[in-house]
This record gives sequence, structure tokens and C-alpha cells, in this order.
Amino acid sequence: MSDEIISERLWTGDYYNEGTGRSDIFDTLKEECGVFGVFGHPEAASLSYYGLHALQHRGEESAGICVSNGEEFNYHRGMGLVKEVFDRDKLMSLRGERSIGHVRYSTSGDSRLTNAQPLVFKYRDGDLAVATNGNIVNAPQIRRELEQSGSIFQTTSDTEVIAHLIARSPKDFVEAAKDALQRLVGGFAFLLMTNDKLIVASDPNGLRPLTMARLGDAYLFSSETCAFEVVGAQSIRDILPGELLVLDDNGLHEDRYTAPQRKALCAMEYIYFSRPDSDLNGSNLHAARKRMGQMMAQESFVDADVVTGVPDSSISAAIGYAEQTGIPYELGLIKNKYTGRTFIQPSQELREQGVKMKLSAVRRVVEGKRVVMIDDSIVRGTTSRRIVNLLRDAGATEVHVRITSPPFKNPCFYGIDTPDRAELIASYKTIDEIRREINADSLEFLSPEGLIQAVGGDNASDYKGGLCMACFDNDYPTRTSFEGEEKFGCSC
Amino acid sequence: MSDEIISERLWTGDYYNEGTGRSDIFDTLKEECGVFGVFGHPEAASLSYYGLHALQHRGEESAGICVSNGEEFNYHRGMGLVKEVFDRDKLMSLRGERSIGHVRYSTSGDSRLTNAQPLVFKYRDGDLAVATNGNIVNAPQIRRELEQSGSIFQTTSDTEVIAHLIARSPKDFVEAAKDALQRLVGGFAFLLMTNDKLIVASDPNGLRPLTMARLGDAYLFSSETCAFEVVGAQSIRDILPGELLVLDDNGLHEDRYTAPQRKALCAMEYIYFSRPDSDLNGSNLHAARKRMGQMMAQESFVDADVVTGVPDSSISAAIGYAEQTGIPYELGLIKNKYTGRTFIQPSQELREQGVKMKLSAVRRVVEGKRVVMIDDSIVRGTTSRRIVNLLRDAGATEVHVRITSPPFKNPCFYGIDTPDRAELIASYKTIDEIRREINADSLEFLSPEGLIQAVGGDNASDYKGGLCMACFDNDYPTRTSFEGEEKFGCSC
Amino acid sequence: MSDEIISERLWTGDYYNEGTGRSDIFDTLKEECGVFGVFGHPEAASLSYYGLHALQHRGEESAGICVSNGEEFNYHRGMGLVKEVFDRDKLMSLRGERSIGHVRYSTSGDSRLTNAQPLVFKYRDGDLAVATNGNIVNAPQIRRELEQSGSIFQTTSDTEVIAHLIARSPKDFVEAAKDALQRLVGGFAFLLMTNDKLIVASDPNGLRPLTMARLGDAYLFSSETCAFEVVGAQSIRDILPGELLVLDDNGLHEDRYTAPQRKALCAMEYIYFSRPDSDLNGSNLHAARKRMGQMMAQESFVDADVVTGVPDSSISAAIGYAEQTGIPYELGLIKNKYTGRTFIQPSQELREQGVKMKLSAVRRVVEGKRVVMIDDSIVRGTTSRRIVNLLRDAGATEVHVRITSPPFKNPCFYGIDTPDRAELIASYKTIDEIRREINADSLEFLSPEGLIQAVGGDNASDYKGGLCMACFDNDYPTRTSFEGEEKFGCSC
Amino acid sequence: MSDEIISERLWTGDYYNEGTGRSDIFDTLKEECGVFGVFGHPEAASLSYYGLHALQHRGEESAGICVSNGEEFNYHRGMGLVKEVFDRDKLMSLRGERSIGHVRYSTSGDSRLTNAQPLVFKYRDGDLAVATNGNIVNAPQIRRELEQSGSIFQTTSDTEVIAHLIARSPKDFVEAAKDALQRLVGGFAFLLMTNDKLIVASDPNGLRPLTMARLGDAYLFSSETCAFEVVGAQSIRDILPGELLVLDDNGLHEDRYTAPQRKALCAMEYIYFSRPDSDLNGSNLHAARKRMGQMMAQESFVDADVVTGVPDSSISAAIGYAEQTGIPYELGLIKNKYTGRTFIQPSQELREQGVKMKLSAVRRVVEGKRVVMIDDSIVRGTTSRRIVNLLRDAGATEVHVRITSPPFKNPCFYGIDTPDRAELIASYKTIDEIRREINADSLEFLSPEGLIQAVGGDNASDYKGGLCMACFDNDYPTRTSFEGEEKFGCSC
Repeated sequence: MSDEIISERLWTGDYYNEGTGRSDIFDTLKEECGVFGVFGHPEAASLSYYGLHALQHRGEESAGICVSNGEEFNYHRGMGLVKEVFDRDKLMSLRGERSIGHVRYSTSGDSRLTNAQPLVFKYRDGDLAVATNGNIVNAPQIRRELEQSGSIFQTTSDTEVIAHLIARSPKDFVEAAKDALQRLVGGFAFLLMTNDKLIVASDPNGLRPLTMARLGDAYLFSSETCAFEVVGAQSIRDILPGELLVLDDNGLHEDRYTAPQRKALCAMEYIYFSRPDSDLNGSNLHAARKRMGQMMAQESFVDADVVTGVPDSSISAAIGYAEQTGIPYELGLIKNKYTGRTFIQPSQELREQGVKMKLSAVRRVVEGKRVVMIDDSIVRGTTSRRIVNLLRDAGATEVHVRITSPPFKNPCFYGIDTPDRAELIASYKTIDEIRREINADSLEFLSPEGLIQAVGGDNASDYKGGLCMACFDNDYPTRTSFEGEEKFGCSC
Repeated sequence: MSDEIISERLWTGDYYNEGTGRSDIFDTLKEECGVFGVFGHPEAASLSYYGLHALQHRGEESAGICVSNGEEFNYHRGMGLVKEVFDRDKLMSLRGERSIGHVRYSTSGDSRLTNAQPLVFKYRDGDLAVATNGNIVNAPQIRRELEQSGSIFQTTSDTEVIAHLIARSPKDFVEAAKDALQRLVGGFAFLLMTNDKLIVASDPNGLRPLTMARLGDAYLFSSETCAFEVVGAQSIRDILPGELLVLDDNGLHEDRYTAPQRKALCAMEYIYFSRPDSDLNGSNLHAARKRMGQMMAQESFVDADVVTGVPDSSISAAIGYAEQTGIPYELGLIKNKYTGRTFIQPSQELREQGVKMKLSAVRRVVEGKRVVMIDDSIVRGTTSRRIVNLLRDAGATEVHVRITSPPFKNPCFYGIDTPDRAELIASYKTIDEIRREINADSLEFLSPEGLIQAVGGDNASDYKGGLCMACFDNDYPTRTSFEGEEKFGCSC
Repeated sequence: MSDEIISERLWTGDYYNEGTGRSDIFDTLKEECGVFGVFGHPEAASLSYYGLHALQHRGEESAGICVSNGEEFNYHRGMGLVKEVFDRDKLMSLRGERSIGHVRYSTSGDSRLTNAQPLVFKYRDGDLAVATNGNIVNAPQIRRELEQSGSIFQTTSDTEVIAHLIARSPKDFVEAAKDALQRLVGGFAFLLMTNDKLIVASDPNGLRPLTMARLGDAYLFSSETCAFEVVGAQSIRDILPGELLVLDDNGLHEDRYTAPQRKALCAMEYIYFSRPDSDLNGSNLHAARKRMGQMMAQESFVDADVVTGVPDSSISAAIGYAEQTGIPYELGLIKNKYTGRTFIQPSQELREQGVKMKLSAVRRVVEGKRVVMIDDSIVRGTTSRRIVNLLRDAGATEVHVRITSPPFKNPCFYGIDTPDRAELIASYKTIDEIRREINADSLEFLSPEGLIQAVGGDNASDYKGGLCMACFDNDYPTRTSFEGEEKFGCSC
Repeated sequence: MSDEIISERLWTGDYYNEGTGRSDIFDTLKEECGVFGVFGHPEAASLSYYGLHALQHRGEESAGICVSNGEEFNYHRGMGLVKEVFDRDKLMSLRGERSIGHVRYSTSGDSRLTNAQPLVFKYRDGDLAVATNGNIVNAPQIRRELEQSGSIFQTTSDTEVIAHLIARSPKDFVEAAKDALQRLVGGFAFLLMTNDKLIVASDPNGLRPLTMARLGDAYLFSSETCAFEVVGAQSIRDILPGELLVLDDNGLHEDRYTAPQRKALCAMEYIYFSRPDSDLNGSNLHAARKRMGQMMAQESFVDADVVTGVPDSSISAAIGYAEQTGIPYELGLIKNKYTGRTFIQPSQELREQGVKMKLSAVRRVVEGKRVVMIDDSIVRGTTSRRIVNLLRDAGATEVHVRITSPPFKNPCFYGIDTPDRAELIASYKTIDEIRREINADSLEFLSPEGLIQAVGGDNASDYKGGLCMACFDNDYPTRTSFEGEEKFGCSC
């Protein structure tokens, strides 16, 4: 992933990711959110802390944990990274065996603290906490209805609608939750907690990842499996489209609130969102990305001296490309970790003199060389052009760009922050025009078929490999049309 | 690098590195110090800030910058990372065209703020600031002499002796500095600044790296070239053994304070200290480490299913090993970036349940596989054993360990923090005994010749390739004997 | 005010007041809340910042400001003092000409950040912000009703009910607010803001103070007049019982939502809550407290050598007592300002050795002297005993205690945090028993008539001088009975 | 004390005093420094923490404590208030039975952390720590001598010279200290600590206060007795001019390093520096200041309606004036505690509209009244003018200013930060000219005789009552002349 948005953020200093472990390799775009749930462990809050830390790359804006001891909630939320939001005292005060946690990168809803999740409410039957990852496409309509009948909202987050729907239902909590979920259209993974029960649910297409593990007698739920490794838990399986799990004193009850639709997991999770040490549908992502690079090499080989990847997201694919072609993989580009809120930006003068905030090319590696530069996607094209020019300025004689995904032409409505269609360069230029725009000697994209084949995994035989590829092919899996194309985003 | 010391630090939470850019891949051991000097740039302090940030992996305990505007000093030092020590206001207050800066990891001297460098003194001729990387072997003797004649010391840092020697000399600053440097035995890189002059000097063997660049009309000096990339400067050359450069209103004057001795740059800088995007002696370090991996593959091939490197320091070598053998490089080990002072450690119970702070193995990658695990060194052996067992617990059927350096048998006296000889496993066990100790199926070390050949570079034809390999072969380049083997360390 | 509660807080370190200007003289008990509103000033947020800082003694737990620019809200709330919650950037981001602000000391509702006011909601007609001081006696019943019909609550603060009542009303904002206020029983001062209008309202008895000023064309509202002095505004008048003011683009509209009841302003505001430089009902409070001391001297003179006041709340009264009797006023007791969250408490050993956290007696002043000790009230009696003993230990030969209010026998239901009746020493002991309990040579309380006469002011001719004296005489001004005596407190 | 310097500091936000307990009443000028020593108490560091907190009004710029356990030092120093510099962990790490501590307000020496005391050195005989209050008039000459013979300095503080003098002496510590002290000219109170001994010394005139107490078996030393009350210690006596106490394993040894000179304790300590609950020469300061007000009333009565004091320093005197005249003491002026580094200053526009940072007049108290305004001194006159105008703007019909000290005409060379003589209004204007300058209806100063009589105390029969009144009468007690009048100040 490499585009203007990112570098803008870098320059304005409000963008960084300190918390993603080795998988810095894949954390360039910060989108969506991450959820982590625990049921039945005496140190539920601590597990959530380590789990959310492992999911930090999914949202660095705010973090929160709500714990239930079976009688009452204790929760803490704050702006910033997991390690900034929680200190020992705060964590120790969150006692209980059940918890839901959240890290957030706002796409819809503004970035106030009041929008930080888990959202916590009091209603007729007691306490209710909600954490979600994804986007509810029809939330604005539901919200308008609720306001007309006297509801007040404290957040701008769409997630709040599900709490109102549940509170207004005369049914019990589980039935009310099923009714509410049936009303929602979009891509979402939900954790809903009362003092009695934990409900875990995925949207009818399984657009957003959500997975389950065991740690002793406890059940754990996470947006990605990497969080399970950290806490020593054993992965069991992914939550299925339309599935709804209920956990209470009787244990785990597997249920569903709707019939499953076409399986359509977000392809961009494979391409760059999820950490390389996570598994999706039974497939390790570093390995999948290496296969994307290998597939790319098969589809569009080019003779060159070195292969380099745009850090951090394209390192795995670059290694795959190098393995397949025999061209050596070298460190031609270095990402400067000017990390954290407190880092001081260079003055305009210094930037003009060459002080680099994000990326630099390593002259000794690329000088006089023909370079294959692997990246995961092109959004607006401006950053790609900048990187190609960095390589040329450092003496590269040729720069061949290979993108390990198809051209990104359509906005996402299911939880990923993308620009309007009009800003997506692939929606209005041919590949050769893009090549000239980014100043490359050659440019190739991975084919949809190559992508599906590289992803492989347990759903390889499903329609489109079980992937949502709407951003490439405009084939959106939900029934709702998006006339007017209002700004997509996520509800978390 | 992988050993008990590190994980001890991890467990006690006082060890972390947030500032090393993409090269997190190589920052496992935090030792020594880093220096950065500027002569003749109106934003000397800002350049130092970015430069020191790029050198952060060389010392995370304290940071400091002293600036001269030609008439007076302004300086700021503090405990913590560069980005924590400086804020915009502090940086803005450091006006001047000349500066010396320092990041510190204490090996000798305790970790008080008063030991943070640059040290700043007032003496007969005005202000004097000193920043150093390395260790002065005979500092204790010199200090005792000075105290006997009435000197008082404010720091426990050995660096303070050079200021006393200069202040007590009747000669002018440059001559006094030469005399003082001649009295010192050890490995060191010095930056000495008054309001008139900047002196840059390297020890007679060039044990510690120190290099020079230009940015417009300004001269820059840094422990590693990676800091030049960040600020857009052009590398010129390394400072030579015994060399002394004087910069003042007349420009750069090249001089020396002693005849050069055998060139003997620290081999561990090649193996794991320096960043992979730095050059040493004209050689990029990622490439050199890949060659170490390739050489390793030639020296001790083993048939296996996957190659994995111990992050972050051994990734380059692992890629080289994979390239050479054709065995695929995979992400079998993941480093959890539990970074920063504020991160909360897991309770004993959670650790026993498998919550992992430092490394985890990726089950889907290693399960049922024969794994080649590449690491850079074995110090005490305990961490290697732990990592091998992690891989076995995750299902690896065989674990073959390949170390890209010779056995580490002797302590360092030139600025690297190493345990006593008695704790170095290679000093009292055979390779096969170590193999059993760490529970590996096979274990091989890179030969000294292989290391020299992989390093290559401009000094390839020098004695031992221009390297100090005393930690491997007990051949210390300085004249002083080390009877009693007092604790080695660095003066910074 | 001087009792166990306070010193408990002091010992646990969670009690302090740094923000009360010279009037530290009166800030011993931290209760209730303070509100500050601005209508029509371009720097509304900054005025609120200074105004709330002046009201800091009324609530040190959290602070918040919500600003409207006529189209949307911007707000910030946080735990801590005004100066801790806001920094320059946060304040600068609050642009608009209208604002309501709040400082909070929780009495009902727990002390979560989510309870910090102003509360901000979104409802059918847009944004709504609420800040209040006081207590709604019947809030629990109203809340239960609302929950039964599907409302969800985000806070435990009773203030939230008014927002629900308004949102559920089919009427326009002003009419809906009137209806809602009519349903409430208790003592309260409300600021209600939308993007169109600011509503200011006081309870039917005027139990809580609320006053109005002008600054140029702007209208300002504050719990106390001291906040007006700071911002250079001119006091106009107090808000009347049952009054409701509406401010919008048409200016100020004076209205009421109910007929006024008996005027009954909280007597404890006169005795110790409000700052000595504030006016209540046209009477300066330092002067009023001096009159209480003078009245006390007339009612119960005692021959003595020095008069001293328990700092800070009783200094004014002690000066009055001294003036009236001619006995010199001396500094016999010193309050140690161990202020702030971060202050480190002494160990048990040190306390036993005499390290004093709260008060110490000045030996040279009291040794060998007959001391008159003036205090404002006795709640449980434990602190009074402790202070008397401090004076005796420092050598006082006699200690005569004079309390400038009647015996405190009944809990408050209108916004003041008081213990249960069973803990109020005056509810179960005679004055002579209390005297023995606190180890005084003599003890006298000011009579209710003396108090009313000292207060004087514009309402002197009203029933009971326009005061609520329920805590002394059990005559509660609202219609609701308090069977079961649930814990009193405030809604803010 | 009331002058431009102070309000300048207020406006720029770098001036505040949060730590002075009830005696905020007297803390307007922050000057000099405070020292606190402990010998023989297992919680020496904690006692120092509470003691220094009580001395906070003497220096708010930095704080430090150095502890010896008999074998080695542990120390911590930092910029800021005592409560900011120390946290529990830092305090707990300072173990030992002996300690010296310091709070600093820089007058000479800049405000770097390196100047924070106690200064700590290593010399031939081990560790040496120094804390001082006062000014060494001939420090620059001594320093030049030392530098010429090769000494290097780390601070700009003159205190460092005593350490060099001791280190260069061939004699033992006590004799070396005596020799060094004999060379010093000025006003100073010294605490000198090694791992064996604690030395306590006062200058030959006793210009700066220094006093002794016992707590169990331990000896305590403090600049003011108020610090003893807080820790429950019993005052014994003041340290005498020229006295030197040695404490070691043999207990307390009373000695002197020079013959005593004329006793000349700083009169401004009586007038406004020391806390009102401190004793000086056996006299409580609140009482002494009341006597100054009474004396003032006898010397220059004026008929008026109210007496008010400029807070906080003149409240005691105002009460005395009111008692003597029968004119009621009222709260006509209120000091706004815009305290702390973090407080946000009002914009220029708001200040012009009347937002007041420092003082405001209470309209209801002064409107239509003839006001006697008591202040302690006039330095430049600008602040007095401002306060008089505040009272007039609030409706005072007459303002009569009474200053409880003689006209301040001469700079101090003994540790108090005063402007150059040319800026002292009383040095170039008559009293009537000053009256017009400050816009008062009448202006009177207390006579030197009146001041001496009010101070009274144990030295009443000494020459000038044992006071240094050089700032009033130009009669400096030390032998050195001050030609050229270099900037006075303090060495701490």
C-alpha cells in the first residue's frame, strides 16, 4: 500500500504504528478496527491488553476494554495506542472473567473519545457493551428512524444503533440481538456483552475476519489469529457468515441469526491489512503474499539486477518474486520509523534539502542497477511516483513496478477507508497511462485469477475463492445499491 | 543476537527500540553509543535530531545535543529516546551552526542523567563539549592521577578524563587534544567542540565506526551512514585510524594525532550492531549479511523444508541462506514488539499459560517441517535453547541452527557490553555440547574465513580483512593487556 | 468545615484544591459542582476556561466545556482540574460564541469520565448539551420509566434524564425543556444548549446559586460571582427561583417554567462553600462571614488570649470574632498544602512520629495561651477533636471552640455530599456531650437567628432570610418526602 | 511585595507557587533558595521531601535531595516543584540516614538542570555533596584562579567553587572546609556532606537564616522553622554567625571557622520572604508582621472605611493595622491563583477586556469606600500603581497606601534578586513623587526604628536589632565594597 494519504499523514505527524511486532512488514495502511473478546478467563482484561496490542495495526486512534465480573461492568477507553491508554493500575481495576476490547481507526464517526469502543450502555435489563469492526451500510437510515421516535445518541458512531434496537425490543437479549442484526446491511464483526452473556456475530457474507480460539477452558475471539499466538491460545476456526455464538454459564451455543450468503472475505485483508503471521481461512499470510510475488513473477517476469519491496507491506511478496526469478532480493528502500505523536517534523527548508520522513532509497544497493520494485497496490498514484523517483535519484537505471493485486478501481463500503472513485487512478487511466504517471519503465498488476490462486486456503473452491473483490471488479456482495456513493467507511 | 541478557531486559521491561526504521530487522542488541556531529549548517540541532533518531538503535538510555553559535553553547540532555528527550521548544532553543549529539547505552558508568552526553564543561579557555562512542581502557588509571592532584569529577563516565587532560594542558586546544588522545588506550570515536572548533578523532585501530558526509557546505559526522540517508547528505568516507580532523572558520583540516595501527573495525558491527541500510568500509550491511548466510549455506548445508531467521537481526542472513540453498524463506518466528517503558508485563500466571513477550513461533509455518533457524550469535545459550524449543512446541520436526559468526569466546574491551568470559558458553563447551544444550538437531558456526570473505569491502586485503575479531580469536589489537579482566564496557 | 471525610481524603491523596485563588480561605470541603455559560462572545471557550478555574473549588474531579458556533458543537471533557484538562490546543479548537462549562465533584453518579459534564447528545432536532449543579431528587423514578420504554443511558448521572425527556417530547426545544423541568424535584441550576439557543434555569426554590453578568454585549452565567471578576464582567443579578431564561439570535428572553416557591438558598453556601470574594444575594461573603464571627462573639464571648481560625474556611469568621472581642487574631493553625494527585504520603512510621499532612499548630503562637478556635461546622466530630488536641499538644492551656453555624443534624438532598444522619454527631449528642467528645473547654454554636442576621443581604426579610436551613432544622423546602433517606447527593 | 517583575512572570506564565500551605499569604516574591538537612534518621529522604515542600516558597525552579547511607550517595534532582521532581519510586530509591536537600530560585547562574543542587562531586577522598542558600560575593575571582590552574566546571553556579577549594586542599575534610569557608565573602548557609560527615555552616554575619531541630535522635537543619512543624520536629536554635557544626558517628560537634561579625539577618526575611508560621530569632512572623502593621498605624494613621492587604504577603500586616485602628479589615483585593506551568494565558484581546491574571479588586467591598491598602514594599512602583488603579476602578473613593518597610533604595548582594539601583523607584524619587507615580491619595513607609521595634525578638538589643537593612540604608555588613555594582544574586 503506498499512496498520498499515507505520506500526508506522515508529514503531518499524526500517523504511526508502533505496535505491530515483526509484521511492521504489513502495516502501512491503518484502517478498520480490531476486536478481541474473552469468555471464562480470570485475567480477561490482561489477555485483552496483549491481544489488542497484537491487533494494534488495525487501529491506533483509540483503545478500550470492558470487563464483566458477572454482576457489573468495569471499563476504560482512551485515545492513543493500547500501551498508552492502559497503565498497570487501570488494567488491574478491570476485574472479571469476560471482556470485549477494541482498537479503532475511525473511518466514519469522528475521532472523539466518546466514539471509542467498546460502547457501554445502561438499559432496562442492565448493562450492555458493544465492540465492532466493519461498516453498517444502512446505519444512517436506522438512526433517523430511532431519532424520530425520541432516541438520543451520544456518539457519532453507527455502532450505537444496535444498542438502541436491542433496548427497544420487547424480546430477551439474544432474540433482540438477532432481530437487530437482521436489520443491518454491510460488513461487520460484532461482540455484544451483558453481565450474563457474550454474543459473537459475523455479517452474512463474512466480509470482515473474526476467529475463535481456546486457552484452557476459556474462549477467545479476535479479528486476527496473530493475537492468539501472543497469548498462547490455540486457534479453532473462523466465525462463519451469518453465524451468531452465545456464551454464558451454559458454555458455548452455536447459532445463526440469518442464512449464510456468498462467502466474501475482504481481499485486501490478504493483500495488506492482516499481519503476515496471521492465518486467514487456514492460510498463513506471509506465505500467501510470497505466493502472490511468485505468481506475479510467472505472470510478468522482467530481467533485472535486484528485487526490492516497498516496506513494510510488500516485503513478503518481494521475497517471493525474488525466489521465483532468482534475481536477488535486496534492501533498496528503507522506511524511516519517524514514529509517534511526539516526533518533531522537519522544517520546510530541511525537507527541501532532502531530509526524508518516510522512505529513503539505499544508494549503494540500487546505484547502476535495474530494479524490480514490488508494491501491494496503487491508490492515487502519487506515492508510487515518489518512490520510483527516489530509486532513480539514488542511481537506479531502470525501475520496474509490480503490483501484487489487480487495479484498485472501486471504493469500499465495508469498513475500509478509500478515497472517492474519482481519485482512484485506475478508475480513469489505462495501465500504460499509470506507468507514465508514476515514471516507471514497466508496470504490471497481478491478475484476479493469480490473486485467487495465491490466496488459496480452505475456500479455494468457493466463488471467487471466497473473496470480496469489489474494489477490483465492482461486484459488491450485499444487496444494497450505493447510488450517490456516499462516503464509505466503517462503523467502528 | 539472541540471549538471556536480552530476554531478561524484555521481561523487566526496560529494554526496547522504537526508533530504528525498517531496520528493526537488525536491532536486537542495544549497545555502545552513537555520535552525530554537524559543522556549518543553520539547522544543526534539527539535523542532529533526525540523525540521532536514525542511530537510536545504538543507545536508548539517554540522548543529548549541544549546539554552538560560535559564542556560547546551548544544550539539552535527558533520559530516554531522542523523541522523548526533545520537544519542539527544546529543539528550537538550540540555535547555532555547529553541534555534537549523542545517544547512549551505558556499559561503564551508571545510568544517571549526569552521565548523559555530550558532557559540557567550562575551563580557562571557555566552553568544551565532548561526545564519544567506545571505551577507554586506561581511563581508571588516568582518573586516579587526576584526583590525586585535586580534580573533582561530576560523572562516573570515563569520558570526563579527556576534558581534565585538556584543561590542565598549557597548550592550545588542538595540541592539548592531541596530547590527551595519545594518552588514551582503547576503541573510541570522539567529537570535541569548543565555540571555535570541532575536533573529530578515531582510535589508532579504528575499532569503532565513524564516518563523514557533506550536506551542501556543511560537514556531517556519524557513527553510521544510515543517519546520512535520512537527512539527505552524501557520504564521503570513513574516519581513519589515528586520524584527527579539525573544523573551524578556515574549513576542514585533516591531521592525525598518532600513527595508524593495524586497522581493526569491530566485527560485531558487521554481524549485528549496525543497521542493514548502513555501509561499512564501502559495503552495504544487508548485502554483507546476506553473503554471510550464503557463505554459511556453502559451509554447512542441511536439507530442510523452511529457513527462518531470528528477528530482527538475522533476517538478512536467513534470506541469503534461503537464496543459496533454494529452501524457501518463511516467517517461522515472530518478534512481538512489546515496546516501550510503559508496556505492562504479563503476570507470572499468564506467562506460564503461554503469554509470550518476545518471540513466538508461527505454528502454521513450522508444523511438521524441518526448520533451518539462522541466528547471528550465541552468548550464553539460554535464549537459543528457548527459541529452538518454541519451534519444537509449534510442531517443527527438526531444528537446525546456523550461526552467522564464529563462536563467541572472549569479552570485548572496546565498547560492547558482554558477560564475563565464564558466562560465554563457547568458552567452555564444544560445539556439540552447545548443540545438546540448546536442543538442536544440528549446529554450525560460520568460519572466521567465511566471515572475512562475506564482509569483503574496501579492506578485504587487510590483515583479517581489517576486522577486530578478538571476541572470536582472543587477538586484541591494542597493546594493553587485560589481566584480571576487569569488566569491559564503554566510556560513553 | 472540618471533619473526618476531609482528612481521609487528604491521607489517601485524592483530595486537593489548587485553583481557588486567595479564597483558599474557604475551600475546605469540595462539593457540588460549578457551571459557567457564555452567550455572544467570540472567545467563549477561553472565558469559560478562566471562569471555571475561578469555580474550581466547587469541583475538582472533572471539567468540561462545550462550544457552539451556531452550527455544530465542539467539546472537551476530562478528569482533573481545569488547568489539567485543557491545554492551549484543546482550548483553541473550541471555536464559537456560545458555550457551557462545568466543574464536577461527584456526589451521585460515579466518577467515570463518561459522567463528566457538559453531557452532549444528538437527537432529532440536532445537538443538545447539558450542564447542571445540584440534585434531582426524583431522577431514579424518571429514569426507570424511561428505561422501561426503551431508552438507553450512557452515564450514571441523573442529569441524563432531562435530555431524554426533551428528546421524547413532541414540542419544540423551549417548551419541551419547560415540561421536563416541571417534572423534576430538587435543587438545581441548569444550562441547556442547542446550536440555536441557550436555556438557563433554576429550581423552584432557588436552592443552588446561579447568577448573571454582562461583558460587552455578551451574557455570562456562573454559579458564583467570583468568576465574573476574573473575566472583567459586570454582575447583574441572580437567577430567580423557577425562572427560565432563553438566549438566541433575538437576545435574552426572560421567562419562567413554574411559579416560584419559597426562596431557600443553601445556607452552607454562605457558611463555607462559596468563595469569600463572591457575593450572594447582594452580600459579600467575606464580610458575611466576618459578621458571623462578630455575632458569635456577641452570643458567646469567652475571655482568652488569642483567636485562631481553622484554615481556610474559618479565617474570615475568626477575624470578625477578634475584631468584636478585641482578642488578637493570630496564626495558631497552619494548613499544609499537600496538594495534588502526585504528592507522596508519609509512611505510617513518619505519621506516628508526627509528620503532619493537613494541619499543624504553631507552638510559639499558642504555647501557654487560652485559645478561641473558630470553625464553620462539626460533622462527625473526629476532626474537631484532632484539631483541639493539636492545639493542646502545642501548649494551649485552654481551647474554646466556636462554630459559626447551628448544629448540623440532617442530611442534604439538594446537592451537598453529607453522611447519613446516624453519623452526624449533632443528631445524637447534646452540645455538652460533643464538647467532651472533642475535648474542648467550651463549645458554642451560632444560633439560627444569628446566622440569618449575619447573612443579611437582599432577602433579609424573606422567610428564614431566604435560606434553606434543612440541615439544621429539618425543614426541607421541596414537597417530596425522603422516606428511607436514600443517599443524598447531586446530579452533576 | 508587589512589582513589575512579579506580574511579568505571571503574564509569561512561568511563575507560581503551589506549595506554601496556608502561608500563601506571604509568598509573593520567590527568591533565594531553601536548604534542609537530616542526620541520623532512617527515612532521611522522606523527611527532606516534606521539609523541602514546606520551603517551596523559597525556590520553585528546581529541587534535589542527596542521601548517604554511610558508604555511597544516591541523589535525584530535577526542574520544577518538589512534588513534580519526586515520585514514590525516586524517593524510595534514596536510602540512607543522612541527607541534604535544596529548593532553588536562581538569581545567579542560569536555570539549567546542571545547576540544580545539591551539587555532587567525586574527588580524591570520595563523594562530596553541597547545598547552599545565599550568595558568595567573591566567587568570580576564586573561580578565575581555579580555572587558571586547570579546573573545569560543570555548572555556572558559584557554589561549585567550594568543592574545588576542598578538593585541592591537602588537609582533611573538616579543615579543608574551614579554609574554604574563610575565603568566601557574602551571605550564605551551607550544608556539606560526605559519606562520613555532615557540615553545617553560616556566614560570619548570619545574613541568611539557618536553624536546627531534633526529631528523636536525629538532627534536622532548615532555612526556616516551618519545615520542622510539618515533620513533627522540635526547634532548638538558630545557627550562629561564623559557626560550623560537624556531625558524624561521634554525634554533634559545635565549632566555628571564623570569629562572628556583627549579627545582620536579612530584614526582608521578616518583611516578606519567610512563611508567617516560621520563627526568626525567637519571634513568630505572622505576629511580627501584625506588629509592623500596628506600628504603621501608630506612625501614620489615616481615617478610612476599610483596610485591605495586598495578598498574600501583606495580609498579616493589614490585620494588625486594622486591629490597631479599629477600621475593619476586609477582602478588597483577591489574588487569582493562576498557578502552574500549564496554565493558559489570556489573549491580548481578553486582557484588554479586563480578564485579570493576578489581582482583582472586589467591587462590593471597596465601592464608595476610603481604602487603606497595606503592602510590604515598593520596588519599581509599576505594580503598586496598577493595584491602586484596580481599587479606584472598582469604586474606591480614596486609596491610602501604607508600606510596612522603609523605602527600598539599594540592591542586595546577599542572595536576593533585586533590580539595579537605577530601577529602584525610591532611589531616585521622593515619597511624594512616588505617591503621585502610584496614584495614591497618601503614601507612608514604616520607619527603620518602627521596623526594628516590630521585629523585636531575641536580638532586639543588637546593633540595628541584629538586622541587615542595607537595602534601606546602604550599610552593607561585609567588608567587600561593591564598586561597579555587578549584578547581585545568589549562588544557589
